[in-house]
Amino acid sequence: MTETVEPKGRVLISEVGPRDGLQNAHGIMPTEAKQRWITALAEAGLQEIEVGSFVRPDRVPQLADTAEVVAHALTIPGLTVAVLAPNAKGAERAIAAGAHKITVPVSASRAHALANVGMTVEQSVEALRSVCALRDAAPEGKRPSVEGGLSTAFGCTLQGEVPEDDVVRLAAMMVEAGADEVGLSDTTGMANPAQVKRLVRRVRAAIGHRLSGVHLHDTRGLALANAFAAWEEGIGTFDGSLAGLGGCPFAPGASGNAVTEDLVSMFHDLGVETGIDLDRLIAARAILAEALPGEVLHGAAARWRAGRQAA
Amino acid sequence: MTETVEPKGRVLISEVGPRDGLQNAHGIMPTEAKQRWITALAEAGLQEIEVGSFVRPDRVPQLADTAEVVAHALTIPGLTVAVLAPNAKGAERAIAAGAHKITVPVSASRAHALANVGMTVEQSVEALRSVCALRDAAPEGKRPSVEGGLSTAFGCTLQGEVPEDDVVRLAAMMVEAGADEVGLSDTTGMANPAQVKRLVRRVRAAIGHRLSGVHLHDTRGLALANAFAAWEEGIGTFDGSLAGLGGCPFAPGASGNAVTEDLVSMFHDLGVETGIDLDRLIAARAILAEALPGEVLHGAAARWRAGRQAA
Repeated sequence: MTETVEPKGRVLISEVGPRDGLQNAHGIMPTEAKQRWITALAEAGLQEIEVGSFVRPDRVPQLADTAEVVAHALTIPGLTVAVLAPNAKGAERAIAAGAHKITVPVSASRAHALANVGMTVEQSVEALRSVCALRDAAPEGKRPSVEGGLSTAFGCTLQGEVPEDDVVRLAAMMVEAGADEVGLSDTTGMANPAQVKRLVRRVRAAIGHRLSGVHLHDTRGLALANAFAAWEEGIGTFDGSLAGLGGCPFAPGASGNAVTEDLVSMFHDLGVETGIDLDRLIAARAILAEALPGEVLHGAAARWRAGRQAA
Repeated sequence: MTETVEPKGRVLISEVGPRDGLQNAHGIMPTEAKQRWITALAEAGLQEIEVGSFVRPDRVPQLADTAEVVAHALTIPGLTVAVLAPNAKGAERAIAAGAHKITVPVSASRAHALANVGMTVEQSVEALRSVCALRDAAPEGKRPSVEGGLSTAFGCTLQGEVPEDDVVRLAAMMVEAGADEVGLSDTTGMANPAQVKRLVRRVRAAIGHRLSGVHLHDTRGLALANAFAAWEEGIGTFDGSLAGLGGCPFAPGASGNAVTEDLVSMFHDLGVETGIDLDRLIAARAILAEALPGEVLHGAAARWRAGRQAA
């Protein structure tokens, strides 16, 4: 089912900072600050936010308050409230909390799968299947969508190269297991833009429109180049983290996520709509500066604006 | 003369740090350190270095020793020694010094032309013509090549938008004035990758193979995305500055050049040859750290390697 897809005139920027950013922050952000941050992001125009993760609190204490954060986010009209859950146990909590969307990570790298969720690749696919069964069993108003997050799709700092054939096969397995959509994650920031184009084409040939978005990291400075390449191939959803917070505690050497405000700035430059007010988005960085003292805030768009104001 | 050009399997990375980087540095690098830096860059495999600028020393005191630096660079076998000269007076000094290549900046933005070189766009083209006349009159062994550096080709912080028609027309005027090649400069870092593709196509349609390279700045974090876009359109020469030093003192808000080592890292990831040893290139940053204390050293490739070594 090969599909050719044109670059989109509107994209969805999905904020993952409250999950992917905070799980790698040095400090723990107070629940109240998380809620203020999420509100500020939504007021800047973000339409989808991954607000937390239903994992073992002893493993990721930064996200132990996810149920409370979800409850707050659900009060914001029009916002898609997403969470991460690695297995059925987490998904049960996510559905009970009322999350609109659950992302289940499935790593293409055996080494990363074991380090990140303590499962083999095959076990992760079965976990995804069990989450989809919970989705199907949920009452209509409480039924979340399920995204398979295909991690280390472009390489892995633990395993090294990840064969593209493995990624394509795994994407098909994830759709077969019931995922509504599959996103390609450059978990450790190993992707280059030619590879992004090639892999997007190959995965789309395998699973068509179920391929939804990309999740990029800026480890080697290529997040925006990779996002541009993905957009040229018709990808319409891009994960980002305000100020580029993030990384992966179980993938040494990985650095922050694609910077949300830089993604927005690039797409606006390209004439692509995001529905986001860049000034308000940049202003929301102040909440991070205050609630995560000592954390490095990345981002060219913010630096450029600050420089212009000083000039 | 429309030409379709495929992405190249080998690119030329041209270092402009000793000129564009140092003219914007806060301190003045001692001549001896410049010479060591240039030697280290050449030993890392760089084949072309813009080592200085023949301008009024009271305007750019950081580059007052350019003749001495050229003399040193000429002792390095195989290195193309490039300099910048805005007019015939500078070009005379460049030819006397023995430079292999002279870049003459011609700005597409009227406001930037006046601020940068104190000339109108038309006067800059006439200056380029007079430099080409000096080239033609030089004895054979001392005859440099002349590149027209088409500044602010993608926008200008002083003037705002720069019409693409102006850029295309100016590129043709520069070739008519005798430039061996024309490079497109994103002097203030305003370009986006779709614009790069469009403008490269348009300028190539006007001047064919005379369009040689791009000179990008990372003001909004798009230098690598723009380089990738240019490469996809068949551009084969990319200016960079080690550690992203640089900017433009006469263009407020502009920040550093494309980071040389990040360009090299990206092209190696893409499977494109540069002839450069990335480890040795990154090691040369130590000279900057020592000779320009307090200067911010940018670059994702270096940060990533340091992080891996620490992990």
